[in-house]
Amino acid sequence: MPDRMIEELDEAECLRLISPGGVGRIAYASRSGPAVLPVSYRLHDGAVVFRATEHGPLDEDLRTGITGAEYRVAFEIDDIDLADRQGWSVLIQGPAHHVTEAERAALQADIATWAPGERELFVRIVPSRIIGRRARPV
Amino acid sequence: MPDRMIEELDEAECLRLISPGGVGRIAYASRSGPAVLPVSYRLHDGAVVFRATEHGPLDEDLRTGITGAEYRVAFEIDDIDLADRQGWSVLIQGPAHHVTEAERAALQADIATWAPGERELFVRIVPSRIIGRRARPV
Repeated sequence: MPDRMIEELDEAECLRLISPGGVGRIAYASRSGPAVLPVSYRLHDGAVVFRATEHGPLDEDLRTGITGAEYRVAFEIDDIDLADRQGWSVLIQGPAHHVTEAERAALQADIATWAPGERELFVRIVPSRIIGRRARPV
Repeated sequence: MPDRMIEELDEAECLRLISPGGVGRIAYASRSGPAVLPVSYRLHDGAVVFRATEHGPLDEDLRTGITGAEYRVAFEIDDIDLADRQGWSVLIQGPAHHVTEAERAALQADIATWAPGERELFVRIVPSRIIGRRARPV
């Protein structure tokens, strides 16, 4: 008898789980192939917002892609307890945009960063698809 | 004065950090755009090996890509303390391959999974590029 089950999470539950913010992983097509990096994020008006260093490697990679109208990226957040074999993960797919100066003023996002540096660039991912799952005891 | 610094990690240090195995995130071009999912992995002969459910969503997505000789994916492992603003992350880029039955017997990988299910499929990522960084107090 399996002692764990997988549960698909609906969008509302996914948003609830990720609403406290924290560390997530941004995945995107970089100049050197698929890439994924940890960033600290906030959820703001239903969008994921995170900071990057202007002209840093992430910015340069994203900038190359963001020039088009739709640069689709993936953002993943999870909380997994490997020892207890339980946890959840949420995957957001959607276009990434630079947040403009004007928007930033309105946004007033106070997003902590885990790595040092100015990280004066704000990037927003507007979810076009949100899926999630949870593994838990039966 | 900044109280934290970023340190680029060499390949040997990256491999040392990820050698205990645990939870990492596989990023790849899925049928619905970029995707990233948490999996538990082991490091075996310098390659990342993880398990997936045969004909599950990850398998189907990878299978679509793996048919070609070179299906490049990204794998990310990190350990971040947001409160203390320190931690490290490692990014591996390289081709993904299904591990064959014969190889599996030789591999003898005993890889725990965090989510339930048979996960009878083994996927190996042979690093073609390994980069990492650490944020730490000055």
